[in-house]
Order: sequence, then structure tokens, then C-alpha cells
Amino acid sequence: MAKNHSLGEIAALVEGQLVGDPNLVISGINDLGRATPEQISFLGNPRYVQAAKDSKAGAILVPANGELELDAAQVCVANPSAAFAKVFALFAPEPIRWETGVHPTATVAPGAKLGKDVYVGPHAVIDANSEIGDHTHIGAGVYVGHETKIGGDTFIYPNVTIRERSVIGSRVILHPGVVIGADGFGYEFQQGRHVKVPQLGYVQIDDDVEIGANTTIDRGRFDKTWIQEGCKIDNLVMIAHNVVVGAHSVIVAQCGISGSSTIGKYVTIAGQSAVVGHIKVADQVTVTGWTAVTKDIIKSGVYRGAPAKPMKESMRIEALTMKLPELYERIQALEKKLEQYEGRK
Amino acid sequence: MAKNHSLGEIAALVEGQLVGDPNLVISGINDLGRATPEQISFLGNPRYVQAAKDSKAGAILVPANGELELDAAQVCVANPSAAFAKVFALFAPEPIRWETGVHPTATVAPGAKLGKDVYVGPHAVIDANSEIGDHTHIGAGVYVGHETKIGGDTFIYPNVTIRERSVIGSRVILHPGVVIGADGFGYEFQQGRHVKVPQLGYVQIDDDVEIGANTTIDRGRFDKTWIQEGCKIDNLVMIAHNVVVGAHSVIVAQCGISGSSTIGKYVTIAGQSAVVGHIKVADQVTVTGWTAVTKDIIKSGVYRGAPAKPMKESMRIEALTMKLPELYERIQALEKKLEQYEGRK
Amino acid sequence: MAKNHSLGEIAALVEGQLVGDPNLVISGINDLGRATPEQISFLGNPRYVQAAKDSKAGAILVPANGELELDAAQVCVANPSAAFAKVFALFAPEPIRWETGVHPTATVAPGAKLGKDVYVGPHAVIDANSEIGDHTHIGAGVYVGHETKIGGDTFIYPNVTIRERSVIGSRVILHPGVVIGADGFGYEFQQGRHVKVPQLGYVQIDDDVEIGANTTIDRGRFDKTWIQEGCKIDNLVMIAHNVVVGAHSVIVAQCGISGSSTIGKYVTIAGQSAVVGHIKVADQVTVTGWTAVTKDIIKSGVYRGAPAKPMKESMRIEALTMKLPELYERIQALEKKLEQYEGRK
Repeated sequence: MAKNHSLGEIAALVEGQLVGDPNLVISGINDLGRATPEQISFLGNPRYVQAAKDSKAGAILVPANGELELDAAQVCVANPSAAFAKVFALFAPEPIRWETGVHPTATVAPGAKLGKDVYVGPHAVIDANSEIGDHTHIGAGVYVGHETKIGGDTFIYPNVTIRERSVIGSRVILHPGVVIGADGFGYEFQQGRHVKVPQLGYVQIDDDVEIGANTTIDRGRFDKTWIQEGCKIDNLVMIAHNVVVGAHSVIVAQCGISGSSTIGKYVTIAGQSAVVGHIKVADQVTVTGWTAVTKDIIKSGVYRGAPAKPMKESMRIEALTMKLPELYERIQALEKKLEQYEGRK
Repeated sequence: MAKNHSLGEIAALVEGQLVGDPNLVISGINDLGRATPEQISFLGNPRYVQAAKDSKAGAILVPANGELELDAAQVCVANPSAAFAKVFALFAPEPIRWETGVHPTATVAPGAKLGKDVYVGPHAVIDANSEIGDHTHIGAGVYVGHETKIGGDTFIYPNVTIRERSVIGSRVILHPGVVIGADGFGYEFQQGRHVKVPQLGYVQIDDDVEIGANTTIDRGRFDKTWIQEGCKIDNLVMIAHNVVVGAHSVIVAQCGISGSSTIGKYVTIAGQSAVVGHIKVADQVTVTGWTAVTKDIIKSGVYRGAPAKPMKESMRIEALTMKLPELYERIQALEKKLEQYEGRK
Repeated sequence: MAKNHSLGEIAALVEGQLVGDPNLVISGINDLGRATPEQISFLGNPRYVQAAKDSKAGAILVPANGELELDAAQVCVANPSAAFAKVFALFAPEPIRWETGVHPTATVAPGAKLGKDVYVGPHAVIDANSEIGDHTHIGAGVYVGHETKIGGDTFIYPNVTIRERSVIGSRVILHPGVVIGADGFGYEFQQGRHVKVPQLGYVQIDDDVEIGANTTIDRGRFDKTWIQEGCKIDNLVMIAHNVVVGAHSVIVAQCGISGSSTIGKYVTIAGQSAVVGHIKVADQVTVTGWTAVTKDIIKSGVYRGAPAKPMKESMRIEALTMKLPELYERIQALEKKLEQYEGRK
């Protein structure tokens, strides 16, 4: 898949000033830490200057005018990130070209409505009375349940399952293995048995949401589980029934949001964290990884720990916990002193 | 999907006494916290009286006789939960009607036996010599391996994978993406390599078990991994090889039960908790969320923390951990005092 | 599935000396803790002598010459593990026999190349220009994307999704629901929205790797996410973009390795642990379960806790944390004494 371009050609493309050999052959792009002498990288942020110095890249797009002392050749530009996007396009693999139309092995039930230029892949199933918007891609082996509505320009990767009556917006991306609309986890305990509580709601996923591989989003009990506009959810996340995730929030891999909790807008929840049920997390809260949110967070800020506390407080408690061995010694010393003292008396 | 019914009609249906406007139009049901003025809710438990007062529901089913001061209209009944079930039926979406029979795109191998009124969905595969009981539903894209036995009235959602020789009971529900019977994780380290230990057992899932989306249950090494009658397991749970989960136990999302551990009957393990391998958890134990069970639990009760301790003990340790900053100050004060004291002498 | 063999027959098979009744009928094998009187087990390690004494097995393969006092009959052999492998074969269920060839319902796109004796199961999809090596098994409902290369003797279970341009070695095992090559989780925040960063790299999985059910391995951003030779990864693990896992490392269930981190060779990471992004873990490190690795680990050894510390240090801190109630009492006692003392003065 490698392609070759001379460094001179690249400098011309980005209208940059070259400090180095224009005949150097570049065969790919990479980040500073992993680039090889045949690759070009970029310094997008001044705090990575050291990484640029340590980099084994053959060339680096830099914001300065050659005053940086680097081993690599430099292509000096006003905006290295923007310039890198152009270089990126030069080396990017050909995008996969998808046909449109319904594959002959797909199963489209009576009453299903397909928009213009829809793709339905091999062995996919579109069940009765569902609607698929224009230019939407339904990958191989996907199941779309009854009366589900999917917007336009949405891309659903293979082996996704979307149950009945889900409502999915436009420009949504669902990665392989995602499950939308499975029953919420609810039982009543009667005569020694857990009796299933019907889960009659649905899942609504608004425009521009992306959901990672094998993540599961359960349907609401009466009402909807709701992922609002622009949210980005990583792999293997669990969103329980009746949860609301506010617009433009980010939930990183393996987090779990328990039933009926409401996450605000522009919230970030880092990996492997948990939010218990029936609580609220305010707008613009950041929850660090490996954190357990056990009650309402009503003020924006950074929260951390199990149970979650404001960052500073949590860091202090952790630091003191790590110093417990010293603390015990100090207490022992105090006890000894006092004993000696009493003895002396 | 909304349907409209007058409040008078609803009161008549549940034989309740109406305190409010019989002409009020109700278009749906919801819980107290999320109901809108067009919806009806219910007060199933006296401890939610405040939630009923705060609710924006248009009407609430209540146990009292109008002596509650609520903004909402009240429908007074002997048993609000039972009455709500009737109202529930009024507003519930039409259940999806599934056909029976084998879809023409399904693949049923020679030697497979299908009971009466079985449904086998599009692109599902029933492999050789497996048996499917009466009225069981095999969703689209499901794979049922060789010599697997599935009972009657079981519902298997799309894209589930059940490997060979699994034994699955009646009235079992498997949500999308569940994997039953993958190999247990076992290796022997020989000459610098991990050599696979054959996993020749199977998985047995008894009657009335429900298993959530993308949960995985590995097969036993020699013998079976066994989920006993009436267990309810949530999404993204990992049950390792040779585990036994006793009857009527509940395991919430993202928990992991390590190899060869035995969980008692009527146990509850809340979300994101872990149980290490080769231990026993007694009957009627509750493990809170975010807990790591690292050794046998021999007495019923509530356990919490990492490592798990009895609830009270764990809460005490956590509270003291949170007070560490104060503790350090007290120690510093003691040290200072003693120093001054010695100085004075 | 049970088969019957007399204990005499079994002793002859392994050329062992029998202490017990040769006519005893054995119908299966099991480990010491779970074996029944109809089953045979083995004592592979002297530290399980007590388990052998407690075992209900009808017979046990032992290294000694009958000098162990066991309830079970004994078959004395030089190497009980090796002998057990032979007995194992006697009772093992018949292996499933898979045909080779492309199932008539599978979809193989133009330009795909299939090696000798390949199996492509029902409803599987091999997309354009991909290559499948000799004797490789592609299960039912598997999706193999464009230009993906898979080696020989690889076994891919049903409902796995492998996206375009993945590179997968020989003798690899992918369990059901695995997702290879989904997009990495990367966005730039621009004008109040998270804008997707293209993920143009791929996933490389080297020879003899095994990956558990519903595990997800994201593709690199520019370059590859790389699982090196001989790694064993359990169920529901998340490997983020650009991660490198060194040869012969083991990652247990539900762990998460964040983006761009590099795991050394012969590393073990036990269950539900996390490794943050952009760090390095040295060769031959062991990370215990329920551990959060938050910075580089540069020395081999055992690490534990959140944040991860060397085992001994972590155990000490934990033990002292558990003793906090006692510590508070000691401080209170000191304060009281000092007060009394001052009072006395």
C-alpha cells in the first residue's frame, strides 16, 4: 500500500519552506513517536517539541522557520495540522468504494421503505415497515427490526443488531457488533422468582452520533433511551434503559451508565468508569478513567476516584493513601516518645 | 405510536375513584420523574410520595383516597401497581407479530430436529443434529452449532452465536450478540509459548434464564459451565469456563466471573464487579457494584469494596480514607505539641 | 455423550499400576474438585494432594506408588499429566467434522482469492480482493472486508467482523463476535462539535494468536494496531488504535488497553485491568486483576492496584488501608493521653 513522493514535491504541495533534501523519498505518514526515516510527521503543538527532537521521522512539518534543531528535515508552514491533512490525503489508502442497491442475498420485508441510493449488504435483514433514509449504508449481516427509522447518510457496519421501533438519525455511524434496543434489565421479585418487567420503550439516537464496536444501548421501559446529537461513544460501552446522554458528550471504552441516569451536554467520561442509576451529571463535567460516580454531580469540573470526588480532593486523598506506610511510622514514633516520656516521669 | 384515552375511561378501567377532570386526555405512561402532563404515572411505594408531588404527570394512580396533595389528577385504587399493569396494556405498543416456520434464506443442516411452530429467521443457521423445542424463536443471523439442544418457548434474538453441544432450557431469552460456548481461556506454558489446553466441555443454561446483549459464557474444560434456573444476566458480562451460577441469581452489566468459581443461589452481583477464579460465593449474598471479590464468601450478607469486605466494614474504611487529610493534620498537631512540650522541658 | 471404560482398561492404556478395582466403570474425566465417583481425575501437582484426598473422583492418576491415602482408586504413573492426556482422548467428545468448500449461501466477491481446502460457512461474506490461506475456516455469518489477508490454518468462528485491509496470520483463532479493525476513537473539537479524525491504518495479527469472544481491536490511525505472535487475548477485551502487544503476551477478560500504548513481550495482564494511553509496559511484566496502569512500567515484575505499584508496595498500602479504623483509635488515644498529661500539669 506504500506510495512514494519526494520531499520537494510534498513541500510544494503544502507551500512550505523546505530545510533539507528535496530528493528524500517519503513513503508514508505517522505520528512523531512511531515515524520511521521513510515517513513524514508533524509538530501540531509546541509541547511536543521534545518528541520532534526524538523522532526518527525523515521529515517533519513544523510551524517555525528552521530554527528548531531537529535531526529530521523540516517543512516550515503556517499551520502544520492543516498542511498535514493535505499530506495525509497524498498517502491515504484508496477509500473503499461501496455500491448502492440491495444485494441479492439481503432480505427486505414487505412494507420497508428504502430511500435513494441506499446500500443493503449481503445477508442483511430489513424487517417490516422500517424506513431507511437516502444514501444510508446497511452492512452485511445487519438486522434492522420492525418499524425502525434510520436517517440519511448513516453508515451501519456489518453484524449490527437494531431492534424494533428504534429511531436513528442522519450521519450516524454504528460500528460492528453494536446492539441497539435490547430489553432493559428489570425484574420484580415474586414468590422466589425474578419476573420480567416488560420493556416497551425504544432507543433514539440523534444525528452525528458515532457508536463503537460491540457497545450495547438498551431500550427504555416506557419511554426512550436517548443519545443526543453529536455524542461519541467508544467500544464495549453499556448504556442502560432510560438513560439520556446529552448532546456532544463523549463516553470512552468499557464505561457503564446505569438505568435512568441523565448525563449532561459536553460531558466526557473516560474509560472503564461507571455511573450508578437514577442520578444526574451536569453539563461540561469530565469524569476521569477508572472512576465510579455514585451520586449527582451538579457542578461542571473534573471528577475522579471511587467514589468520584472533585479532582483536587481525590488526588490529595490518593497521595495520602500512598503515604500510609510513612504515616504509620510517625504514629509509632509518637507512641514511643510518649511512652518514654511517661516512663521518665 | 401515541394513543389517546380520557382519564375517565382509565379510571373506569381500573375501577378507581377519580379526583380530577375525567375529560383530561392521556396519551401515554411513564415513571414519576419523566412523565409529562399528557402522561399517567403511578405511586407504587409510599417512599416515592415526594416524587409524586414533584411529578409533572397529568395523572397518577395512588393508593390513598385523595388526601395526598398533588398537582396531578389522582386515580385512587387499592393496588396502584396492579392497576398500572392494566393501564400499561392500554398504551403498550402492539407486540411484534412473528411468523413461525423456517425462512427460505435460513440454513438448516441435515439431522437437525425442529419442534412445532418453531421460527427460524433469515440467514440463521441450525447446524447438524441440533434440536429446537416447540414455539422457540431463532432470530435472523443466529448460529446454532452441532448437537446443541434448545428447549421450548425460548427466544433467541438476532446475531447470537451458540456453539456445539450447548444445552439450553425452555423460556430462555438470549439478547443480540450473546456468545454461548466459546472456548475457555486456558494454556500451558511450554518452551516459551502458550499452548492451548483443549476445552471439551459445554455450556448448560437452565429454564427461565435471560442473558443480556453481547454477554459471553465460555464452555467448560471437561465438564459444563452452568447457569441455573431463573438467573438473570445483564449485558457485556463475562462468565468464564467451569463457572456455576446458582438458581435465581442476578448478575448486572459488565461483571466478570473468573474460571471455576461457584456462585450460590439468589445471589446479586451489581455492575462492573469481579469475582476471581476458583472461589465460592454463598447463597443470598449481595455484592455491590464496582467490587472485587477475591476470596470465598461463606456467609450471606452485603459485600463491597476492592477487596470485598462486609458492607459496614467497607463503608467505615472508605469513610476513614476520605478523612485522611484531617488525619494527617491531627498527627502533625500531635507531633508539634510533643515537640513544644519537650522544648519547654 | 458419556462413554464407559473400565478402570483396568484405562490403567493398561497409560501403562500404570492400579491400586483399586479394575472392574470399576469410568464414564468421564474431570478436575479433582468436580469429579464424581464415575469419573477419573489426576494429581498433576504435589500441592493438590489435599484436593485429591477431598476429591469424590472414582479414580485418580497419581505420581506416587499407592502410598497416598485416598478414597479414590489410584492409577500410579510416572507423569500423571501426560497420562491424563491419553485418558482425555478416550473420553473426549468426537471432534466436530467440518467440510471444506464454499457454502452455497456464502458470498465471495470478485477478486477474492481462496486457498486450498478453505471452508466458507453459510451466509459468510468475503469481500473484494481479500485472500484466505489454505485450510482456513471462515464460520457462518463472518464478514471479511476488502483487501484483507488471512493466513493458513486459521479458524474464524461465526459472526466475527474483520474490516478492510486487516492482516491476519496463520493458526490464528478468532472466537464469535470478535471485531477487528473498527475505527479508532479520535476526534478534534471544532466549533462546539467533535469532528471525526480519519482512521486510515489497519490491524495486524500475527501467527498463533487467539482472541476471545466479543473482543474488539481497533485499526491504527496512520499505521497499524499490532498483536504480535503467540498472544492470547480473552473475551470482551478492548485494544485501542495504534496499540502494540508484544509477542506471547496474555490479556485476560474485560481489560482495556488505551490508544498508542505499547505492551512488551511475555506480559500478563489479568482481568478487568486498564492501561492508559501513550505508555509503555516492559517485557515480562505481570499486572494483577483489577489494576490501573497509569504510567510507564520500565522493569519486569508484578504490579497491582489503582494506580499500579510494585506488588509488595501495593499490598502494604492496602493492608494499612484496611487497618485505618485501628489507626484512628491509636491517634485518638494519643490525643487523649497528651491532653490528660497537659491537664495534669
